[in-house]
Amino acid sequence: MRIGLLAGSGSLPRQVHDALLNEGHEVVPVMLGDAQPILPDATICPLDRPGRLIRHLRAKGATKLIMIGRLERPIVSTLRPDLKGWRILPKIIKGLRQGDDGLLRAVAQIFEDEGFEIINPLAYVPNLSLAAGSFGVPNVAHLEDINRGWALLDDLSSHDIGQACVVRAGNVIAIEAAEGTDAMLERVADLSDGRSGRQRQPSGVLVKKPKSAQDMRFDLPAIGPRTMELVAQAGLAGICVAADGFVLAEPEASKKAVAEYDLFLLIRDHS
Amino acid sequence: MRIGLLAGSGSLPRQVHDALLNEGHEVVPVMLGDAQPILPDATICPLDRPGRLIRHLRAKGATKLIMIGRLERPIVSTLRPDLKGWRILPKIIKGLRQGDDGLLRAVAQIFEDEGFEIINPLAYVPNLSLAAGSFGVPNVAHLEDINRGWALLDDLSSHDIGQACVVRAGNVIAIEAAEGTDAMLERVADLSDGRSGRQRQPSGVLVKKPKSAQDMRFDLPAIGPRTMELVAQAGLAGICVAADGFVLAEPEASKKAVAEYDLFLLIRDHS
Repeated sequence: MRIGLLAGSGSLPRQVHDALLNEGHEVVPVMLGDAQPILPDATICPLDRPGRLIRHLRAKGATKLIMIGRLERPIVSTLRPDLKGWRILPKIIKGLRQGDDGLLRAVAQIFEDEGFEIINPLAYVPNLSLAAGSFGVPNVAHLEDINRGWALLDDLSSHDIGQACVVRAGNVIAIEAAEGTDAMLERVADLSDGRSGRQRQPSGVLVKKPKSAQDMRFDLPAIGPRTMELVAQAGLAGICVAADGFVLAEPEASKKAVAEYDLFLLIRDHS
Repeated sequence: MRIGLLAGSGSLPRQVHDALLNEGHEVVPVMLGDAQPILPDATICPLDRPGRLIRHLRAKGATKLIMIGRLERPIVSTLRPDLKGWRILPKIIKGLRQGDDGLLRAVAQIFEDEGFEIINPLAYVPNLSLAAGSFGVPNVAHLEDINRGWALLDDLSSHDIGQACVVRAGNVIAIEAAEGTDAMLERVADLSDGRSGRQRQPSGVLVKKPKSAQDMRFDLPAIGPRTMELVAQAGLAGICVAADGFVLAEPEASKKAVAEYDLFLLIRDHS
């Protein structure tokens, strides 16, 4: 099958690109905006020139699209839209006002309106994720913290927020809203530094799972080596994610980091 | 009545001190730890010398205590406990592990175990707060954001978290956990800076209310001039707090700041 790969920044687009080729698919790679690093043979298309991009995808016969990677928020005042760009600009701006989520949703909607189908990369590249199981072993206190965070995220889900939280010794230390998981973990590291010297014994967990209304086609929760590093710096003991609810960036480096920082990574079934 | 005033840092202890005198109470002022600024005629008592403090309060005949102001987290390695201090140290350290909340709870418990009664300052100094009403006027969008945030905090309450959140255009931008309201507002300011230039029109609200399990005797949510400043810097339009659920630090400066930054301050009845 021929799949258009709309790539943002970060390592995930390359990972998905190579995995799609491995699975025998044909790929039409497009770099969105100023996304880096650039995929081999990719067409570069600013977000404000969707007309050109849509013609290109049609010419190449790509009707299914995967959107993956970090989308940089465009500076509205520097946009130089093409004809279609002018028509979609209000949608983009409205999306921008609703946060990163809204921007992704707006971009996806634009392509759907043009007859493309946005697909969930996990359905085509299953090895982007990990099956239920565990690397390293959480102890009883960690499992209690995980249950606490899991229940909290379930509740937050009805408010259409809450991809992640940090729980330590039964206390919810941080909840992610618009700032993203990395910024939340940095905050936890700052909080931990403030208390009676750095904790000797890592404790507490990062719990991350999609909210029920999350559109997994273009808003997949991701963890990677940087997550492991930040979790360790925050003095946490490990991570719990939902099976089928995340992509693992740089799988080898991620697993190595989990072992190196002496963390656990629990992949939990939805229940 | 003779009331022991256990004072932490910030402007609130002085405000409560003067208001208590105004209402005709006698006050036995004690500065906890390295709290600043120091109240007139206050005894200074490090947190690790509770024996001395308890003898002092008994000698002065203060059986009711008000705890007010910010408690600095002690550096455990520098503590030099007295006899009673050694006995309570495990409780303090356990409390410290549970965050600022836990520290306050642990300190309160210590005094209760010695037969003192901790009282809610709002019950003795009603003018520390404001009755239901509004300074400035929220518009319909603001009221929708307020309802959204209010419902979220109600739900979070069952998880024993969530004193405050920020909602903008129907999106929950930030939720407070252990970092405190000021840090959360600074984060919102950073997020707002990041998006396509600073927003021209202030939008979004800070919603702040006690969680159901909040012990109002020693953990009163507070807002003050600094809150108004941070709310304005975050590009928000206003603040909603719960009647009987907060103290207003520096009332005159606070009201002036609300007007100066062109904010609204809605004091909403519990419902």
